[in-house]
Amino acid sequence: MKNNSPFTDDKKNSVGALGESELIKRIKLWLGNTSPKAPHGIGDDCAVLPSSPKKQLITVDPIIYGRHFDDSVTAEQAGSKLLKRNISDIAAMGGKPTYCVISLCLDSGVKLDWLKHFYLGIKKTAKAYSISVVGGDISEMDRACIATLTLLGTQVTQRVLTRNSAKTDDLIYVTGKLGLSLSRGHHYSFKPRLNEALWLAQQPCVNALMDLSDGIAKDINCLVPAHAVACIFPDKLPLNIKASVKNALCDGEDYELLFTVKSKTQRNSFEAKWKKSFPEVKLSLIGFMSPQKKRPKEAINLEDFFGYEHLTQ
Amino acid sequence: MKNNSPFTDDKKNSVGALGESELIKRIKLWLGNTSPKAPHGIGDDCAVLPSSPKKQLITVDPIIYGRHFDDSVTAEQAGSKLLKRNISDIAAMGGKPTYCVISLCLDSGVKLDWLKHFYLGIKKTAKAYSISVVGGDISEMDRACIATLTLLGTQVTQRVLTRNSAKTDDLIYVTGKLGLSLSRGHHYSFKPRLNEALWLAQQPCVNALMDLSDGIAKDINCLVPAHAVACIFPDKLPLNIKASVKNALCDGEDYELLFTVKSKTQRNSFEAKWKKSFPEVKLSLIGFMSPQKKRPKEAINLEDFFGYEHLTQ
Repeated sequence: MKNNSPFTDDKKNSVGALGESELIKRIKLWLGNTSPKAPHGIGDDCAVLPSSPKKQLITVDPIIYGRHFDDSVTAEQAGSKLLKRNISDIAAMGGKPTYCVISLCLDSGVKLDWLKHFYLGIKKTAKAYSISVVGGDISEMDRACIATLTLLGTQVTQRVLTRNSAKTDDLIYVTGKLGLSLSRGHHYSFKPRLNEALWLAQQPCVNALMDLSDGIAKDINCLVPAHAVACIFPDKLPLNIKASVKNALCDGEDYELLFTVKSKTQRNSFEAKWKKSFPEVKLSLIGFMSPQKKRPKEAINLEDFFGYEHLTQ
Repeated sequence: MKNNSPFTDDKKNSVGALGESELIKRIKLWLGNTSPKAPHGIGDDCAVLPSSPKKQLITVDPIIYGRHFDDSVTAEQAGSKLLKRNISDIAAMGGKPTYCVISLCLDSGVKLDWLKHFYLGIKKTAKAYSISVVGGDISEMDRACIATLTLLGTQVTQRVLTRNSAKTDDLIYVTGKLGLSLSRGHHYSFKPRLNEALWLAQQPCVNALMDLSDGIAKDINCLVPAHAVACIFPDKLPLNIKASVKNALCDGEDYELLFTVKSKTQRNSFEAKWKKSFPEVKLSLIGFMSPQKKRPKEAINLEDFFGYEHLTQ
């Protein structure tokens, strides 16, 4: 394993050797034209953004050393992951990402070279999705390496796809394959399902959509309509190699799309259209939103499983 | 001193006893109508914001336990400070704050009651400035109590006031009094200079503006135009009681406005107009932007002083 640790004992190669003002100059340099000139980018009290004739979206997610990444991940991968997990949220509403700001909490012993490659990872992903990095903040905190990214997006389809618009009897679909994201390295190598989500937002049969970050067992609860229960069938779950049903339900960090379509949808036609648009992305019908008390025996009792729950003792 | 510590050993009264999903429900409850219903507030992959016919502003600032607040500050004061330091940045561009998202990194032993009062502090300030809390994120991190707030704003005046538009010979003004912010409790009790900044943005004689967060000695560098040098006179600095010139230059966290006006401005008329608009806010002419090599002897050699510099060893 390469030495991916963000920390160094070599003070002269640490962020503390530069100090905040110099570091901000370097960050601008590393980001190049991914960061517009002040006041439209880094360098004033705020960044100035153009007016937005369409509805906007906003989301925030951090990455924390020891929790969302560790020494098995390169700095570039960590930077890219930070941006991609936020893009995945914008995608999940049927939007397109636009601008972001990044707040850093760093130990003064964070390697300058690590931070450089972290920003190069952000830059690469930002370029790929036409996102501008317009601002941020740097604070010092002992033993910490945290980056919190707030991402804005724009509504590009006729409607914003929410979580709370699923109906009883809706069919439940999921993209890709599930489980073992951490051991497979999927948690940093994934590609946010941006185009797929934009396509889904344009299909009138799609009622509700979200991205999978904490595992279906937990995340599905956000989609279940009142007086309904989610029925998911174990043999329908698209499993990654070596992944169990439990892995698919609970592991988290899949960054796949979970969505429901109207019960009267012509399945074959819908699935054929999907296949034509995204021939390489598996689409699986995994269950339906059953009226309460009508859960078939074959469906998984989701209460037996738990997704990734933060802050539990 | 009251027991203001965010941490407890009593597990059943900690955030870890609830877990993330329950905690999010509580946060919505605590915020009340300061947080609109999903998808316009907390509860979906993103928050949906209305279109913005005017230019927008964005800024981000965290508060970190042990750095920006400690046990001498109540939870409510800490929450209020988090929002106000961001409002101060929006004000400094001549904008009005609108929406915010809050990302938490918390040890599972953070007191539930502390967090409740932290959000009540945010709510109180958000209401006072008509800001909506539209989303956020919760992550777990050992020994941490960090909240990072990203604030959006709207341009309400004809122009956005930037830092980089000062000219040689401009006069330098500052609002309020400076120094000893920490010992005076000003760092949490301050009122962001929102109305004052909006007024200044409407005065054609004002060239550049920023808010003072790290002390004039450091912050003034952001305003100095090319081929000029800032000349500040020690006897002109508005000092708080017991504050020295060094305190005024270096302490930081003043959250006052530092701005420049055109050299040909009719000073008396400008200052009289200010006094009429803000009779209770002191305005001080503290110096000017001199052409290089023409610094009067009486002016402070700012290179002898340093403002608050993050990340220095």
